[in-house]
Amino acid sequence: MNRVYMDHAAATPVRRRVLDAMLPYFDREFGNPSTVYDMGSKVKQVVEGQREKVAELIGAKPGEIIFTSSGAEANNLAIKGVAFARQKKGDHLVISSIEHHSVLNSARFLERMGFEVAFLAVDKYGLVEPERLMEAIRPETILVSIMHANNEIGTIEPISEISSVCRENGVVFHTDGVATVGNIPVKVDKLGVDLLSLSGVSLGAPKGIGALYFRDRIRLMPLIHGGIQERGRRAGTENVPAIVGLGKALELAAEELANGVNGSRVREMRNTLVSGVQERIEHSKHTGHPEKRLPGHASFCFEAIEGEALLFMLSQGGVYANTGSACASKALKTSPVLAAIGIPPEVAQGSIVFTMNGSNRIEEVEYVLEKLPPAVERLRSFSPVWKKSMAA
Amino acid sequence: MNRVYMDHAAATPVRRRVLDAMLPYFDREFGNPSTVYDMGSKVKQVVEGQREKVAELIGAKPGEIIFTSSGAEANNLAIKGVAFARQKKGDHLVISSIEHHSVLNSARFLERMGFEVAFLAVDKYGLVEPERLMEAIRPETILVSIMHANNEIGTIEPISEISSVCRENGVVFHTDGVATVGNIPVKVDKLGVDLLSLSGVSLGAPKGIGALYFRDRIRLMPLIHGGIQERGRRAGTENVPAIVGLGKALELAAEELANGVNGSRVREMRNTLVSGVQERIEHSKHTGHPEKRLPGHASFCFEAIEGEALLFMLSQGGVYANTGSACASKALKTSPVLAAIGIPPEVAQGSIVFTMNGSNRIEEVEYVLEKLPPAVERLRSFSPVWKKSMAA
Repeated sequence: MNRVYMDHAAATPVRRRVLDAMLPYFDREFGNPSTVYDMGSKVKQVVEGQREKVAELIGAKPGEIIFTSSGAEANNLAIKGVAFARQKKGDHLVISSIEHHSVLNSARFLERMGFEVAFLAVDKYGLVEPERLMEAIRPETILVSIMHANNEIGTIEPISEISSVCRENGVVFHTDGVATVGNIPVKVDKLGVDLLSLSGVSLGAPKGIGALYFRDRIRLMPLIHGGIQERGRRAGTENVPAIVGLGKALELAAEELANGVNGSRVREMRNTLVSGVQERIEHSKHTGHPEKRLPGHASFCFEAIEGEALLFMLSQGGVYANTGSACASKALKTSPVLAAIGIPPEVAQGSIVFTMNGSNRIEEVEYVLEKLPPAVERLRSFSPVWKKSMAA
Repeated sequence: MNRVYMDHAAATPVRRRVLDAMLPYFDREFGNPSTVYDMGSKVKQVVEGQREKVAELIGAKPGEIIFTSSGAEANNLAIKGVAFARQKKGDHLVISSIEHHSVLNSARFLERMGFEVAFLAVDKYGLVEPERLMEAIRPETILVSIMHANNEIGTIEPISEISSVCRENGVVFHTDGVATVGNIPVKVDKLGVDLLSLSGVSLGAPKGIGALYFRDRIRLMPLIHGGIQERGRRAGTENVPAIVGLGKALELAAEELANGVNGSRVREMRNTLVSGVQERIEHSKHTGHPEKRLPGHASFCFEAIEGEALLFMLSQGGVYANTGSACASKALKTSPVLAAIGIPPEVAQGSIVFTMNGSNRIEEVEYVLEKLPPAVERLRSFSPVWKKSMAA
């Protein structure tokens, strides 16, 4: 076993077919899509073709897709773009307390700009309760943002129920679909969302690209002002190769979802990992919802150890996982997501997240189940906390 | 002559050596730089190495460089980032009336947010006069932004003089260096700037990448909020291949600038084109400053024709140029830059811009001088305006 990579939520290698699709647009077809001559208009058509494809895959219209440089940018554009465009209608936003940093910190920025933000509590599985949302919405609420699935604990939120509450109250609803699009079926109409962020980071798309779906009547203040690209909603020369890469990666992911390659097999590997860990490692906690979760997502907290030390030890044995969100790994001692679901800080410190996809194999899961228990045991043998709790 | 490409300000093919440098980071070294294990920290080192290189090339420190997704994003981050961070100190900004749309429209957004913006007039060459800037600065002025060189008329602004005025008045100064970095020597200390935007669009770097230099004491509100990437100043997974591509393209451009490949030869081609056009086409105007201009930049207005029609006709003969700014080509009938230098709208409509670099050859200039006059003549023969003015 050379390398067992189970950190697909943080990064994936660009797939061969994706890179092959991108290559012509670096040097052969390099025109600027905004130029009027054939070299430009040809590339413009390629970009519009990708827009149609991405739109179709999530059940949207091409004019409802804005390409961005990342899922984080799409989240920023959604939150700030709606807030600034609807400022005259109200100054109140509701987000969940387990949103990705790009949503959370966009909301905190808006607080500095005079908006008010309600942070919605979640239950012990990380689920948002629609009744609580109903109570949080006020006449001046202009936007609700609740993620489709959480990247740290894997829980999938009841988006259709949440969107119904928003619709009944006439509030615009955004969901961060970075963890779900391509991994589970996502159709904007079925979910009933007004805006949805996505990226291909976990799908073998290149870095540096994401997209925002916005229902066609939604007004948006641009985040990046300037030229007329993306119909005036996002300035900067279109990143043509990356747009082609995102389109191709989403297309392949959708095919594999449809023919079941990624569905049941990935779910089975995840279940094997979860039950194996629960059997083999005492004082461990499987975080997030047991069933309502991303197919390839397994997350745990092990008492009395440090997640980062565990990651480091595992990586020396060729196993790659994460402590939670790559974006936050050095910023925070304990995760606000784990705090929000009621995990005490001393347990939350021992957090580890495995994210698998169709490229993983069951043998890799078995290898992890071989390596993980002795690593946890070894770290615990160093831990004064562990000795104390064992002595008690 | 297969294709004569003289629209390098709008787009350039990614150079072979640049693409080769990028390729390993798509699939082999794909780790997320924010992860704690070796696969991530190795890639993190690569990103930091590029940051050091870019910093060194413009005479800055690595911690003063933020990678962005484009020059447009760098401009937005500079203008909005400084304005929001310094809001308590004042609410007044000064920009020139010929800034790129990404600066101009960022300033217009700030006007909607309650800031006041002074738009500085320029002379007939597009030069900002430092005395006028002095008059425009008020006690509550927090930021001045004047571009290093204008993309439509090629004029290079007296940045050192402008920065002296700003320094004397304690005002933060940003310059948009997208048109200059890599094309002429740029050192931030010599220019005396506090912030400088750059990209590699004209240098054979990939699309989807840019950078902002900010002097280390300058406070900046992030434009894209979220994780801890770029030391908390720009969220979103680092676009590793594109960062490597930008670094390599800037490195190659600096080498060629140093050994004179791009300097005198490009300037000579430009001069041949300018004098050739002036000799061969009557009622033409060479726009921008005759000497203080970008080496590969030649811009003209031809009376009584439409620039877009001319471009289209030229492209059918294999010659590719631009009407001005690619970002604005479909947005506006006449260019605000040409209006600002006093070109009447009916003349400004016949605008054409050639941007050459070291990949161009003198034979190509001769080819353009062969194709351009009959194209202008042909279009004028269709033009009622032309017939009328000839009859008068």
